[in-house]
Formats: sequence, C-alpha cells, structure tokens
Amino acid sequence: MSAQFPQGPASGSYFDEASSAEVVNARMGENINPRLREVMTVLVKHLHAAVKEIEPTHEEWLAAIKFLTETGQMCSDWRQEFILLSDVLGVSMLVDAINHRRPSGATPNTILGPFYLSNAPRYENGANICLDGKGEPLLVAGRVLNTDGQPLPNASIEVWQTNDDGFYDVQQKGIQPDFNLRGVFTTDREGKYWFRSVKPRHYPIPADGPVGKLLGSLGRHPNRAAHLHFIVTATGYDPIITHIFAPDCQYLGEDTVFGVKSELIADFKKVDDAQKAQSVGLAAPFWSVDWDFSLAHCKSLQNAE
Amino acid sequence: MSAQFPQGPASGSYFDEASSAEVVNARMGENINPRLREVMTVLVKHLHAAVKEIEPTHEEWLAAIKFLTETGQMCSDWRQEFILLSDVLGVSMLVDAINHRRPSGATPNTILGPFYLSNAPRYENGANICLDGKGEPLLVAGRVLNTDGQPLPNASIEVWQTNDDGFYDVQQKGIQPDFNLRGVFTTDREGKYWFRSVKPRHYPIPADGPVGKLLGSLGRHPNRAAHLHFIVTATGYDPIITHIFAPDCQYLGEDTVFGVKSELIADFKKVDDAQKAQSVGLAAPFWSVDWDFSLAHCKSLQNAE
Repeated sequence: MSAQFPQGPASGSYFDEASSAEVVNARMGENINPRLREVMTVLVKHLHAAVKEIEPTHEEWLAAIKFLTETGQMCSDWRQEFILLSDVLGVSMLVDAINHRRPSGATPNTILGPFYLSNAPRYENGANICLDGKGEPLLVAGRVLNTDGQPLPNASIEVWQTNDDGFYDVQQKGIQPDFNLRGVFTTDREGKYWFRSVKPRHYPIPADGPVGKLLGSLGRHPNRAAHLHFIVTATGYDPIITHIFAPDCQYLGEDTVFGVKSELIADFKKVDDAQKAQSVGLAAPFWSVDWDFSLAHCKSLQNAE
Repeated sequence: MSAQFPQGPASGSYFDEASSAEVVNARMGENINPRLREVMTVLVKHLHAAVKEIEPTHEEWLAAIKFLTETGQMCSDWRQEFILLSDVLGVSMLVDAINHRRPSGATPNTILGPFYLSNAPRYENGANICLDGKGEPLLVAGRVLNTDGQPLPNASIEVWQTNDDGFYDVQQKGIQPDFNLRGVFTTDREGKYWFRSVKPRHYPIPADGPVGKLLGSLGRHPNRAAHLHFIVTATGYDPIITHIFAPDCQYLGEDTVFGVKSELIADFKKVDDAQKAQSVGLAAPFWSVDWDFSLAHCKSLQNAE
C-alpha cells in the first residue's frame, strides 16, 4: 500500500475468524445505553461461539435465515410465533425462573401463557366456572397462606383452564360460552377458597407454523400437560402466576413448553361417594383437589423493613 | 401425590434453572436427523447460557421478541432483513470464513452481497464498464495466478460495483443504465486482464428497518467501505468471491458488515500524466490499481490426486 493514504486501523482490528466476536463488539459506540452494550456483548459472544461450534454450511445458514423470516411472518395480532419458539426452546420458562427466584416454601411461578383474560367474572366461593356442562366434575379447595403458614383472608385467586375438548373459551368463540372456565375468587376469614369446575385436558400449542414444523423435525409433540392456571394476589405479598398439573396426564413428563415443576403436580383424588358429591353440588364420581398457595412477603416491603 | 397415578419422569427431568438446556435438549426424539440434533444441541446450549448471563427482565425478553418479529416482517421479495442482521453482527463473514479456509497465498473470500447479477455483459479486456460517465476514472489491471504463481489463461473475472453516487444499478432502475458498472472479462494467454471503470464509493446498507435502528442504538453507522466485487473462476481451481477495497475510504476501518480484510486493501495510485491517460483511454488524472488474484487447486481434485 502506498504511503499517501490513511491506513485505517491496524490490520488486527479487521475481521478474522479467531477474534470475530471481539471485533464485532469493539464496533459499538462509546455513548450508548450501558445495558444494551452488556446484552449485545453477551449475545454476540454466544452467537459467534455457536457458529464456530456448528460450522454451518452456506445452505444451513440460509435455512436458519429462512426459518427466522417465516417465524416473523407467521406473527399477527392473534399469533406470536416467536413467543412460541421461546416457549418450546425453554427460554420463556428460563426467563420466568430468573425473575421469580422465591424464598423456600413459596409457590413457584410459571409462565402466564397466551390465554389469560383480565376481565374474568368474580364469583362467590363454591361457584361452578364450567358453563358448558362438559367433562368430569372437579372440586378445587384450599387456602392461601404466607410462607410462615399464616392464612391470608381477602386474597384474590384467579383461575382459567381448557374445557373437556382441550380448548380455551377464546379459542372457540361462539362454540363455548364467553368466560367459560374462568373466574376470580376471594379467600374467606380463614384464608380458604373453593370452587367447582371440570378436570382440565391436555392441548396442543398452535402447530401449523414454522415452530410446529420444527417440533416435528425434532421428534417432539406440541402438547401441553393438563393444567389449571392461577394468579394469586394478597396485599403486602408478591403476586404469583402459577399452574397446577393433573398427575395422570400422559404429557406430564413432556410438557412442550417445560411448564411442569414437581412442586406443582397436584393430587387429583377420585371421589365415588354420592353423599359427598351431593354435599358439594356435583355428580358422583367427581375429582377433588386440595391445594394451598404460599405467598412470600413483597420484596420491596422486605427491603423497606 | 397419591400412588394411583403414574408419576411421570423423575422430578429431576422437569425443567429447572440449573439444567435448563440439558432438559430441553433431552426432549428431542431418537430417530431425528443427526445433523439437526447436533445443531439444535449447540444452539440451545448457547441460547440458555446467554440468557443466564444476561438475566433479562420480562420487558427485555419481550423487546427481543418484538425486534425479531419486526425483522421478519420487514422481509419481502426485495428485502432480507435477517440477512442484514447476520451481516452487521459479523455472522455472515464468520460463516464465509469457516467455509473458505484457503491455503496460504490464495486470495481470501468475502461475502457475495445482495447486488450480484448473474447475467452481466461479457466484454473484451480494456472495455469501460462505467456507462453513466460519472466519477473519477479508474484503470484496473492484473493477472490471475495459481498459488504456485503460474498465470492462468482463460480465467473469468466478473466485476460489479457502485456508481459515483454510492448506488448499484439495480438500486436505481431508470436512473442508471442497466448493467452499469458490471462486466465479465477473460484473462489473455499471459493470465492478464484489464478494464476501465470509476473509483467506487462507500454506501449505506438499507437502514430504514429494525436492523438500521439497532445500528443506531449501538452507535454504529450503516456504511460499507468503498469496494469492487469480484468472482474469479478458472478450470480446475476453486472459484473465489472477493472484494478489493479503496485504501482512502473513511469507512475502511469500520465496514458495517465486517467485509474488509487487510490482504484485500488495494493500492489505488493517482496518475496525473496526460500521455499515460491517453494511452489507456481515460482522462487525466486517473486512478490505477494493479491487482492479482491467486486461486487454489480444486479441493475435490486435490483429494482425487
């Protein structure tokens, strides 16, 4: 090179295979958001490490580009395929776990899922949230406690679940009654709640897009293990978003979004006793679940103490 | 849990933060494509490691989902935003480097880029590929050699570049003449080629999408350093896709797709000599580049030897 031109950086700062991630990260400006710098530094480091370990061919790289493009183009106001991807790769549960490390004894958190509605009807304890009359009757009863074991009166318990066909009401508009299998309950003076419902069923996540195709290629099914969703809140305590799982579901060990935690598998007892059934307003035989939630004191309040 | 139900897997195989990647990877089926298994195992491992290192908040996770979604939705028949993302994160150059490790002495490869056309006109040596008459005149001349230094007659040299405004012909349909600054040349009996053109200019990659916004947030500009693209092929030799770079470009040290390699920075000599200019059919002053390409024997042929 002739001396008349500026030389640019030392040749070491041009791209090369060995120091590729460092070269890319060194390109960031000085006055950028420090958290963005931190996040991108880690992402680029792991992305380049993965590429170096995989050594993709040009065709494999192009297949990845195509997959990501199709995943983005599958998204609409009613479908979020990148969240599905995050779910089936365990990333959603990992982010949830990182953000909800709880003191020992508190009920673990799980992901919210796409089927929550914020305006579910409020019921008295004992109400039956199953409005379509389909499925095996279920009684759910228990208490909301704090991690010291003290009952919490006036706690709010919000529940939502699939019907006996494995669909949420919002997936079957006009087929299921609106707000079928949803409700908000309040604990009594002893911290107790109870309601009637039906046994939940497993169901597939939407599998007609690129993520469903990926699951197929990986030899995986798209099914979630049967569960009820809950949000439990009480004044002065950290709210919890959680599930309880039916222990006899065939997909319990292979929930496709990795939502199952052993602490959240409930004991569903089958009760074949006409008198007991009549006393709770259900037909015999019915399923019965006793389930207590355990809430930790608000971290922010703890910090203030 | 009551004993009447199957227990699912041992609780250790449910999801937990510590072994998250292993749990996800263990879910793959037995009879799947072994390369897909290898690729996904590495991707999930690094993805989970990155999430654990970053510890994203829910809002940061959602911002990543939104970015990926918008990147997919920016793609069209005329725009590939995920390739742009791969380019600006250095992934495209890394994949290229991994797939084109060459014997010492061979001209390094670079990425093809989105502006190549396969049907450029074929010219005699000496032709001027600049059809719009704009810019500083340039003479490019040199030889195609093998890595032993032997000249290769009848080698094909395909060139394409921006015009003086920093645009390719395909970006300015109706403004630039079709096939402006593109051509295919053939080396003579001494392995020599030469053609006339104009000095290339730096130009921005498309920056009106999510990738452009990301570059802005990272304090990076969208500019590529000024260059000419080449594809050089000769019977019995590995084809090369490469660039040569102008040494005085202000973006030489910060090419936004990391295409610059020190071995590909050419010596652009300014020649202010009316007689020499006349002898090559250009106006004085003109720029002159001597550039030899060095091709390695076909790997497949070497293996056969």
